[in-house]
Amino acid sequence: MHEPIAGPVRVLFLDVDGTLTDGLIAFDREGDARNFWVRDGLALEWARDLDVLPVVISGRKSEAVVARMKDLRLEHYLGIQDKVGVAEQVLAREQVRFDQCVMVGDDLPDVPLMRRVGWPIAVADAQPEAKAFARTVTHATAGHGAVREVVEMVLRHNGTWERILERYQAR
Amino acid sequence: MHEPIAGPVRVLFLDVDGTLTDGLIAFDREGDARNFWVRDGLALEWARDLDVLPVVISGRKSEAVVARMKDLRLEHYLGIQDKVGVAEQVLAREQVRFDQCVMVGDDLPDVPLMRRVGWPIAVADAQPEAKAFARTVTHATAGHGAVREVVEMVLRHNGTWERILERYQAR
Amino acid sequence: MHEPIAGPVRVLFLDVDGTLTDGLIAFDREGDARNFWVRDGLALEWARDLDVLPVVISGRKSEAVVARMKDLRLEHYLGIQDKVGVAEQVLAREQVRFDQCVMVGDDLPDVPLMRRVGWPIAVADAQPEAKAFARTVTHATAGHGAVREVVEMVLRHNGTWERILERYQAR
Amino acid sequence: MHEPIAGPVRVLFLDVDGTLTDGLIAFDREGDARNFWVRDGLALEWARDLDVLPVVISGRKSEAVVARMKDLRLEHYLGIQDKVGVAEQVLAREQVRFDQCVMVGDDLPDVPLMRRVGWPIAVADAQPEAKAFARTVTHATAGHGAVREVVEMVLRHNGTWERILERYQAR
Repeated sequence: MHEPIAGPVRVLFLDVDGTLTDGLIAFDREGDARNFWVRDGLALEWARDLDVLPVVISGRKSEAVVARMKDLRLEHYLGIQDKVGVAEQVLAREQVRFDQCVMVGDDLPDVPLMRRVGWPIAVADAQPEAKAFARTVTHATAGHGAVREVVEMVLRHNGTWERILERYQAR
Repeated sequence: MHEPIAGPVRVLFLDVDGTLTDGLIAFDREGDARNFWVRDGLALEWARDLDVLPVVISGRKSEAVVARMKDLRLEHYLGIQDKVGVAEQVLAREQVRFDQCVMVGDDLPDVPLMRRVGWPIAVADAQPEAKAFARTVTHATAGHGAVREVVEMVLRHNGTWERILERYQAR
Repeated sequence: MHEPIAGPVRVLFLDVDGTLTDGLIAFDREGDARNFWVRDGLALEWARDLDVLPVVISGRKSEAVVARMKDLRLEHYLGIQDKVGVAEQVLAREQVRFDQCVMVGDDLPDVPLMRRVGWPIAVADAQPEAKAFARTVTHATAGHGAVREVVEMVLRHNGTWERILERYQAR
Repeated sequence: MHEPIAGPVRVLFLDVDGTLTDGLIAFDREGDARNFWVRDGLALEWARDLDVLPVVISGRKSEAVVARMKDLRLEHYLGIQDKVGVAEQVLAREQVRFDQCVMVGDDLPDVPLMRRVGWPIAVADAQPEAKAFARTVTHATAGHGAVREVVEMVLRHNGTWERILERYQAR
């Protein structure tokens, strides 16, 4: 694979439903719940430790998502219609350009931001309309390792993945 | 595929368990929960925006289903033994004929209404008895995209799917 | 398939975890939850309507299971170490012999009762030790239709399945 | 398979997320939930009955996990960064050496302890980095029988599996 972008990835934008979750929304009488993947969360902590800022942007609002975001201490924006507008504000604050960013998504509402970043990624079970705008499609499906796979790709691209292996005596 | 019905689809009838959900009913000590698919819900909002009225009819009652129905602001009838009778009332109010309708189902209680509408659809994992009365069987299973697939089929049939792609800059 | 038992099936014994559920037990901070299959429950109502008594016997206790049992109004015995003993009491009351019964299970604790009944059935994803004592193994897995399949087999054996198809105008 | 370790297994160390669970963490507005496999829990009770001590060590804290641990009355340590350190304390108390132990894991945080024990095992859906340090990889995936499979392997190795079959009249 040729290098997807020139320099290191600085910001990792992520959709929630169908990207960080398996796409299911469970409802009981009191509200909703979502399924997240434990290894995705661990990987996002590694990304932050190694200077890749994860930023979560979702079109829906959900207290369940807020609970997971707090659990992982992730910067998050929920109930967002204009994902590109939110991303522009983050990039202005971080002094980062769109071509230094990854966006991971699964469906049509992710396409406008996927078209702006340097490295758009679709999860394995994304809608074909989202895959059509991705440079990379993960092997793992959403909620079952897609984001873990993205983080490893990004850290390898940035040249910092070995530090994770060293941390766990796995070299 | 020859055109399933002559004019545009006006009403989209939907079963809940095993059609809008994955067929599981989770029980805890306080009651039940159901799994819905995020992209099904988004698609039903598109359908309503483009003049296809989704109407949900279920044989069971469940507060969990009510919560999802309110989340999506869907017209719904729960605990219904006579699905055809409910559908007739909806069609009288909407001035729509059965041959302008889709019904999506998965099991025997859906068969009487499937036999009445112009375009009966069974989900991929429907019981064979329901598939036998369907004109179309989806590729996706229930709770994992079957209803999204139905909505796209209906909007393509109605000639309005391109407007969804335009909305998300995906053409 | 030769007829598994001579006369009609009178009692249908069922295990819970891994037979009526998909084998998962979800825990949150307050207790447990289980996943049931909507079409299994509907089929158990048909069985009762057509003179096959479903009786649920589980080795574990769970308020979540109680909630589902009440939802379906099923006779149930939970926290049972001696499943055969419970079954004997049911059969004495019902004036039914073991050779007029089905037992559906998935694991070693089900084996003693499977060895007693006339028609022992294992779900598709049962442990090999349980399958070894089954006369029939379902095609569907537990929590995804195994019990629905059993009910249809039993009603066909009893000669009453056609009445279900007639009820739903599916002949 | 050559014998993985010389004498009987005395302690069975287990990770939680992705090993005893299916790797999903469900969040609702109030907290998290985890999916466990009923047959894994039953097998851990057999292990304890037959002198193999299960000890659970997790890097995360969760009330949901505590609830399952109490349900099975398992010795557990949650929120642990140094799994090897905890294991050393257990072994000193039990007068057991690392080469008499199994460790079952799925991801990088399990590697340091996997490298210490006599018989490191990875679940079928472990990360490749964890599989690289395992002597055995299970056929079953986590949360769907991996730990049941490990317990059976361990009891067969110890020569006590037949006692389980006898208990359930399954010989």
